[in-house]
Amino acid sequence: MIDQESSVAASDGLVRIRLDLSYDGADFAGWASQPGQRTVLGVVAGALEVLLPSSGPVTVAGRTDAGVHATGQVAHLDVAAEQWAGIGDLRAKLAGLLPHDVRVREVREVPAAFDARFAALWRRYVYRISDAPWGVEPLRRTDTLHWRRSLAEDVMQRSSTKLLGTHDFAAYCRRRAGATTIRELQHLKIERTGHLIEAEVQADAFCHSMVRSLIGALLAVGDGRRPPDWPASLLTLPARTGDLQVAPAHGLTLVAVGYPPDDQFAPRTKVTRTVRQLPGPD
Amino acid sequence: MIDQESSVAASDGLVRIRLDLSYDGADFAGWASQPGQRTVLGVVAGALEVLLPSSGPVTVAGRTDAGVHATGQVAHLDVAAEQWAGIGDLRAKLAGLLPHDVRVREVREVPAAFDARFAALWRRYVYRISDAPWGVEPLRRTDTLHWRRSLAEDVMQRSSTKLLGTHDFAAYCRRRAGATTIRELQHLKIERTGHLIEAEVQADAFCHSMVRSLIGALLAVGDGRRPPDWPASLLTLPARTGDLQVAPAHGLTLVAVGYPPDDQFAPRTKVTRTVRQLPGPD
Repeated sequence: MIDQESSVAASDGLVRIRLDLSYDGADFAGWASQPGQRTVLGVVAGALEVLLPSSGPVTVAGRTDAGVHATGQVAHLDVAAEQWAGIGDLRAKLAGLLPHDVRVREVREVPAAFDARFAALWRRYVYRISDAPWGVEPLRRTDTLHWRRSLAEDVMQRSSTKLLGTHDFAAYCRRRAGATTIRELQHLKIERTGHLIEAEVQADAFCHSMVRSLIGALLAVGDGRRPPDWPASLLTLPARTGDLQVAPAHGLTLVAVGYPPDDQFAPRTKVTRTVRQLPGPD
Repeated sequence: MIDQESSVAASDGLVRIRLDLSYDGADFAGWASQPGQRTVLGVVAGALEVLLPSSGPVTVAGRTDAGVHATGQVAHLDVAAEQWAGIGDLRAKLAGLLPHDVRVREVREVPAAFDARFAALWRRYVYRISDAPWGVEPLRRTDTLHWRRSLAEDVMQRSSTKLLGTHDFAAYCRRRAGATTIRELQHLKIERTGHLIEAEVQADAFCHSMVRSLIGALLAVGDGRRPPDWPASLLTLPARTGDLQVAPAHGLTLVAVGYPPDDQFAPRTKVTRTVRQLPGPD
């Protein structure tokens, strides 16, 4: 029961199950299993192995890094139909087995064509920042970055508009061999409430460290170290630049993943797989 | 520099300073100093002693119990005018010295008649409850109670209206010798957002464990164990009843304290001191 790059549609005798999860990333070395590390997948898969010993691997919508949180993570797995029929209230059983820093909020049977990763239309993250001179509200210090210089959120918002749309985000991505870095940034909204700044960022998908790199660029604009057109100017670069600081993990939360209607899972999965297999433009 | 029952107005050569504080109560044995325990006052007073060695005792608006949080706590202390003149940015210095689970959000000079405890017009608390079958959103588990039975928030709201006004809350108070248990409950509002129920409770002042006892009574009504008129019926009791469960500390946060305009501090303090010195009606 380990994570995998892709998954196959549930076959005969199997039932596909969707899980909606929340977690506090502070004490996890990210989503994906790593030997000797406490990971979200490791903990969830461990509980599933107890309850559904024959279940298949768990596929997730967004493989979050160490320290990143989730309130809207989505995963799927295949379970033998016989076991599924006899499991009873799986959600309640998972609530009893799992530690308090990870919760399975919903468990439901989905069409065999549902794929948590490849059927997703978009992922949405929120990054929380406090620029208060006194620090971060203590009850929210787990998921809020303290920024020591004051931030001009209106400048950050204007600067971000040029990043919207389909671009090669190579400058914002940790490169993986054979993977494209072209993404559609659909939405980037920055709102201030007192000393709290929340950046809501949505794309069809994000490459590795992309949200935190985008936030790093906007922080440099917000506190005046870089001009407002700097984040968009990086889109011309063929690869990551050392000028760009990746914002710390603990300010970031995966809040939602969007999917098409039930009868559109298979076409969407086909499109996504094709796009991801194209090489990058460089 | 210890807490005290009352405080005197700042005298010549002293400046009265108001502190606005937030804290995560999880790792504190409450506000008030206790030998061998980590308390909010102990930590804050320790930092003040470093920065302002001649400052007087710290008086607080609400002496929160072990595990109770604050986003709107208020305190005052007197500082030698000479030291105050040379301190510079005390708030920034406190931010550097204090641990991350307690923050001083504001520091300002106030009229000598200001008294964080006795000049207060009201205290406002919020109690957070999740009745989700899957538990509590992990990022908010520090300040949210999990209730395993589903709650009828509309019944809780209706039940609470009969508690409003001036009553003897003896049934809801841990008794202290010579102290009245008459309080004015000004506001009790219960709101649900999904699985989260927030109860906002405001009174002129609260006796010991009063908010948590009120919430305990409303939880019994909300999950159907008691009839809606039960919380108000307890107001006829002369003392605490074993039937009433005190809700756990970690769901409770002191969110605000209200004060009169600057020229009304002294009259308000006089009224409060007189009321508090009256014996209870029993």
